[in-house]
Amino acid sequence: MVYSEEFFILANQLINAGRFIDSKGWVPATSGNFSARLSDGTIAITVSGVHKGHLKPEDIMLIDADANSLDNKKPSAEAVLHTSLYKRFPQIQSILHPHPINATLVSRIFRTEIILENYELLKALNDINSHESRVVIPIFANDQNIPRLAEQVDQYMVNKNMSPAYLIAGHGLYSWGNSVNETLRHLEALDFLFECELRLRGVKNQ
Amino acid sequence: MVYSEEFFILANQLINAGRFIDSKGWVPATSGNFSARLSDGTIAITVSGVHKGHLKPEDIMLIDADANSLDNKKPSAEAVLHTSLYKRFPQIQSILHPHPINATLVSRIFRTEIILENYELLKALNDINSHESRVVIPIFANDQNIPRLAEQVDQYMVNKNMSPAYLIAGHGLYSWGNSVNETLRHLEALDFLFECELRLRGVKNQ
Amino acid sequence: MVYSEEFFILANQLINAGRFIDSKGWVPATSGNFSARLSDGTIAITVSGVHKGHLKPEDIMLIDADANSLDNKKPSAEAVLHTSLYKRFPQIQSILHPHPINATLVSRIFRTEIILENYELLKALNDINSHESRVVIPIFANDQNIPRLAEQVDQYMVNKNMSPAYLIAGHGLYSWGNSVNETLRHLEALDFLFECELRLRGVKNQ
Amino acid sequence: MVYSEEFFILANQLINAGRFIDSKGWVPATSGNFSARLSDGTIAITVSGVHKGHLKPEDIMLIDADANSLDNKKPSAEAVLHTSLYKRFPQIQSILHPHPINATLVSRIFRTEIILENYELLKALNDINSHESRVVIPIFANDQNIPRLAEQVDQYMVNKNMSPAYLIAGHGLYSWGNSVNETLRHLEALDFLFECELRLRGVKNQ
Repeated sequence: MVYSEEFFILANQLINAGRFIDSKGWVPATSGNFSARLSDGTIAITVSGVHKGHLKPEDIMLIDADANSLDNKKPSAEAVLHTSLYKRFPQIQSILHPHPINATLVSRIFRTEIILENYELLKALNDINSHESRVVIPIFANDQNIPRLAEQVDQYMVNKNMSPAYLIAGHGLYSWGNSVNETLRHLEALDFLFECELRLRGVKNQ
Repeated sequence: MVYSEEFFILANQLINAGRFIDSKGWVPATSGNFSARLSDGTIAITVSGVHKGHLKPEDIMLIDADANSLDNKKPSAEAVLHTSLYKRFPQIQSILHPHPINATLVSRIFRTEIILENYELLKALNDINSHESRVVIPIFANDQNIPRLAEQVDQYMVNKNMSPAYLIAGHGLYSWGNSVNETLRHLEALDFLFECELRLRGVKNQ
Repeated sequence: MVYSEEFFILANQLINAGRFIDSKGWVPATSGNFSARLSDGTIAITVSGVHKGHLKPEDIMLIDADANSLDNKKPSAEAVLHTSLYKRFPQIQSILHPHPINATLVSRIFRTEIILENYELLKALNDINSHESRVVIPIFANDQNIPRLAEQVDQYMVNKNMSPAYLIAGHGLYSWGNSVNETLRHLEALDFLFECELRLRGVKNQ
Repeated sequence: MVYSEEFFILANQLINAGRFIDSKGWVPATSGNFSARLSDGTIAITVSGVHKGHLKPEDIMLIDADANSLDNKKPSAEAVLHTSLYKRFPQIQSILHPHPINATLVSRIFRTEIILENYELLKALNDINSHESRVVIPIFANDQNIPRLAEQVDQYMVNKNMSPAYLIAGHGLYSWGNSVNETLRHLEALDFLFECELRLRGVKNQ
């Protein structure tokens, strides 16, 4: 298999993203998976079963738009959750799925969605220009049947405006953006906002 | 544009301050902005839209006392909040505005001010010599209209004694001092004191 | 004393495990102890009384299957807790006993066991394939009489299915796996899950 | 001024202790002070007003048993709290006074003392051999009059058995041991135990 220079550049961005994400404690054990879309529509994605904080170049593989392996490596079992979003939204160029404790707790405390408002940091999310905006992050039930879960997410997205991320109950966070860097900025902002909401619940209501 | 040696020294202090502040998690995404005043009254300030934990020399720019760009770079949208304080208080030489989670939570739980007393660490704040002092940090409503917000802060400052910092609701902390280093000391002390107050509320009242 | 190459390889893995575990704050003061089994049934184990975050090669010693020293060094007072597990379960190749604050709190809040369910991260534990699994971690009363404590644990294990770990009240966590690396993965996952359960109790029931 | 080799060895231990203590966040701003006793009864102690995480050799000075400067440097305002303990207990060779948030919160929530029991980690404290021990840490009211505060502590110590540390309300922790290293082990254990007690109060009583 010969990989393009574009693949290596994106693979390197995913490796560095993994190091940053792990330094925050957001990919315990071998949880999480990351991807970035190439200009020809193929997708660089992490292989199954490795620690996302210590990715090596050979841990990034290539799949087509339908999640088929193009290099005989085995992609994450959740690859279809990535390809399904890439198909629906042409502007998405990267998807990062970490497993932060704040996102996991939010997904179990808030039932179907969490609403974020009155935070200046909302402006770190794409297309948000004021703290007076209202951002809704949907929460889906966890499901080991990944195509069924992908279908459920896709149905939601076609009916609503695109949110910057979604949660799966007990299972962490999917976030995306027009580059690996923008997606990292979304992750950093969302973790901050989730922690605020959790601590406000714990501190305020006593 | 030719910059003075004084500019480079202060710019370097702001870059190092950003690294320290980011290591504490106080500037998530691209939040926050920092400045320092030169002896001729011009001001070194961070440009708009960069991550404050990884500042490069070209991310620090020069404005005049009215927040006009002197080098064709674009200052932070909140530059007027800096210049307004520098005008009011000649002793202020540096202003650091991070976005710590403790300050954000304090600004949403306490309504118009937070009162700090009975802490030895109050002595880390300028002009405080005993834990028996009482320090009041005002909290202002957030406003995307920055000149209007600056005016509101300025009105408060003219009527009251100078506090070592103020909060904007859901928007972090403005702190200042007679040098970048003194301002960092204020930030470190205030974050500690805010966390104490938040945890005392959570731990004590049960 | 001459040690085998296998001993040095495993000793090195325990030293690195200690560095990682200490970076998480899981071995305060001189708490904790670690071991790995060699192919001839002897066991590499940490000596008594050293800080587990800064292990040197000479801090790892060799004992036989009954916890007798084979190199005149003094093993941890809790060595019998290791040998007892190795005897009962031939598939266990490494045992790590850190002292994390989350495990300590879980052991004092939950009485005889903690039940983990509805977490995707359960799949990081050996033989777990779905978040719908139910994992029971037993909690034993602390006892300075280590043989008596080992006997109590052994009785539990013979009656129940093997859990991936057990807790001792006020005393941290024993975890194991088929390699040092797998055991570290278990520790990382269990600490995450314990923190979730603790924070859910604190955040939810208000 | 010529310093002995023993002074330099102890000064170096205090510098390294400060780096470790700062990495834990236990000396915010310029809080805290550290000392170690030399064999001739003089005391190496940190000077006033520096950040304890970045100590330089010149930030450690020499005082006599009555807290008089022997090298024209200015010792911490709290030097008498050190010399008073050294006089009372000949076995004490080092005193470390950091300002951790857990100790500060404990000092404000528990009134006159905190009692620690049923923790295996108690065995990290000098002379404790079982989790069934009961350790009492006294809490004194803060006082800017340091000789008066030292007198109050000394009265307590003469009447009771020696505890491994004491707290001053809103002001952090004084801890000691027969070496800098043993004192660090006490600090690490006490911070863990204080955090347990604080979190047990927050988690349990709901």
